[in-house]
Amino acid sequence: MKRNVFSFPSKCNYDKRRIIHSIKVGIALVLVSLLYLLDPLFKQVGENTMWAIMTVVVVFEFFAGATLSKGINRGIGTVTGGGLGCLAAILADKIGGRIGNAIVVASSVFIFGAAATYARLVPRIKRRYDYGAMIFILTFNLVVVGGVRAEKVMELAGKRLSTIGMGFAVCIFISLLVFPIWASDDLHYSIASKFDKLASSIEGCLEDYFKMASEKENKTDANLEACKSVLHSKSNDESLANFAKWEPWHGKFGLSYPWEMYLEIGEILRELAATTIAFKGCLQSPKQLSPMQRRQMNEPCEILGLTLVWIMRELGESIEKMNKCRAKNLMIPKLQSLNLQLNLMHLSSKIQVEHDDNLAISSFIFLLREIVGKVEVL
Amino acid sequence: MKRNVFSFPSKCNYDKRRIIHSIKVGIALVLVSLLYLLDPLFKQVGENTMWAIMTVVVVFEFFAGATLSKGINRGIGTVTGGGLGCLAAILADKIGGRIGNAIVVASSVFIFGAAATYARLVPRIKRRYDYGAMIFILTFNLVVVGGVRAEKVMELAGKRLSTIGMGFAVCIFISLLVFPIWASDDLHYSIASKFDKLASSIEGCLEDYFKMASEKENKTDANLEACKSVLHSKSNDESLANFAKWEPWHGKFGLSYPWEMYLEIGEILRELAATTIAFKGCLQSPKQLSPMQRRQMNEPCEILGLTLVWIMRELGESIEKMNKCRAKNLMIPKLQSLNLQLNLMHLSSKIQVEHDDNLAISSFIFLLREIVGKVEVL
Repeated sequence: MKRNVFSFPSKCNYDKRRIIHSIKVGIALVLVSLLYLLDPLFKQVGENTMWAIMTVVVVFEFFAGATLSKGINRGIGTVTGGGLGCLAAILADKIGGRIGNAIVVASSVFIFGAAATYARLVPRIKRRYDYGAMIFILTFNLVVVGGVRAEKVMELAGKRLSTIGMGFAVCIFISLLVFPIWASDDLHYSIASKFDKLASSIEGCLEDYFKMASEKENKTDANLEACKSVLHSKSNDESLANFAKWEPWHGKFGLSYPWEMYLEIGEILRELAATTIAFKGCLQSPKQLSPMQRRQMNEPCEILGLTLVWIMRELGESIEKMNKCRAKNLMIPKLQSLNLQLNLMHLSSKIQVEHDDNLAISSFIFLLREIVGKVEVL
Repeated sequence: MKRNVFSFPSKCNYDKRRIIHSIKVGIALVLVSLLYLLDPLFKQVGENTMWAIMTVVVVFEFFAGATLSKGINRGIGTVTGGGLGCLAAILADKIGGRIGNAIVVASSVFIFGAAATYARLVPRIKRRYDYGAMIFILTFNLVVVGGVRAEKVMELAGKRLSTIGMGFAVCIFISLLVFPIWASDDLHYSIASKFDKLASSIEGCLEDYFKMASEKENKTDANLEACKSVLHSKSNDESLANFAKWEPWHGKFGLSYPWEMYLEIGEILRELAATTIAFKGCLQSPKQLSPMQRRQMNEPCEILGLTLVWIMRELGESIEKMNKCRAKNLMIPKLQSLNLQLNLMHLSSKIQVEHDDNLAISSFIFLLREIVGKVEVL
């Protein structure tokens, strides 16, 4: 019964991508180690190769967008941290004197360290520039403290920057060009598959209800799990959207693709999942209808449920394939007749409970339809 | 109406903690910079001070537990990575020959890098040892690649390890002993405050319902927000619990405190939040009772709502103060009479809708009561 229309990020496929990612990291590491292993290259960069290795290890992430974002953050952090560090080191040098120098260095370390740490705790900065701020603190400290000894800060900073650039280039090259793993694809399919998950859990739920009590133990839990996974997908979706924004034009996604829209749809789907869970709670509540009554209302409920499920699947598919929902014209009258049906049922008192939840669901679907319409237009 | 009984992690307080944290990081950075600035110390450790600075910048986190966990991860990663790196470097040396050496190094870099990256993607390892695996890759690479040149890997590794140890010691000292910020406190109060949030949103919801339509626009949204923040707290709670496990005995929390229990309670509260959102959806559905009918059922509903809210607040407070819920004996009969009342109301058909959701809520509270009872016993 659990069709997997959207099998893209399935277990097996995910494993394959993990292996691809691991191999890519391995290749990047070997490439960057060549800086050490080949004599002519080593003479050029010297001990600073360390920074290239470090960059690859730290920056190379699973998703292409995450790698880009971390790399750019690292670049910005290194440049600004290094620049300010140089200034502070020169200032400390001007003031002169062993002790005066040390005081200037220590106080600048304290001030910039504390300020940047505070910035890292502000949610808006944390979301996008957390890593950059950390690298800023690190570079600033290393440069300003090292400047006391080395006296050739500028040269050192330049060399480090160039090796970091090399590491970054290797990362970007391998991450974006060799079997890239896009966060945007993941986000797209995860949103589309949510429709399917909810559809099958509503379906399973209604089915269970009209079966005998003995059979329905284990399946309901599986349905609940699917709902809960939709419910708790917020932070995951948000980080995917964050990475997707960094990703360049590729495949079917243009530049400035409306990623925010995905988050909005996700939000509504989560509300729908919450409603579905509550609906299930009602169906499992101790106060139940007699089997006879159940059989009576079996048919209308089944039609209703099937329509709902069909609409959900249709919507999911249309998002997945990014075409205008072909059944849109069919859907609106169907939803209206559903609402009408529910109103009629409402009058016969006893079976009100389940249907009012369905009403809530169908009103959610109304909302959904509107937003999906928006996406399709874009 | 929105009493804030549990004002602990309030906006202002959180800001104060952010400032304290920033100052602590600043102090730690200055302390570790002293290694560079003071001549006798510098002679001892030399350029390796860099590693101490890096350790402080990377390891020092907001919560004490997070700092400990990262520090220990870093230690384990460095030791195992360094050890294996040394072995590989020695092996490469034994085989000898410029090219043979390079091949051994490159292939070991590839194999260990890819394997550790794969391990980082396994969810169970990722949750607790992600950072350690990253440091393992980094150290292994640096040691094995550096070994080709330096020929004194062992000594270098030892020095780096000792500076990393120094950085770690500074972090732990400042993080744990100077105004520590405990993840366990945060988890404790966040769970307790969830009861309050849900209680006030149920309260506000019922109140709005019995007011005129014109007044109730903006407040309902605020109620929904509180519910949603409870709903989406899963990942936050999990990371807090993860850090809390690392934290040593302190305050009222013993060793091996049952943090899992908090997660269970959080899970149930999230289900309750989902039900509350659905409940709200029912109250806002276009199909409403007439004002006259509403006035009729105002009184029983109010009593019912107040009892619910009172129970929730009582439970939250008892968790916050960690005493056995003093009203436990009162609660059980109250809940039973609530259920009875609901059953009676159920017979009068029209007002069924809202109450059946209340029924679901009260059955959740039954569940809650049991688990809270467990916590109190511990």
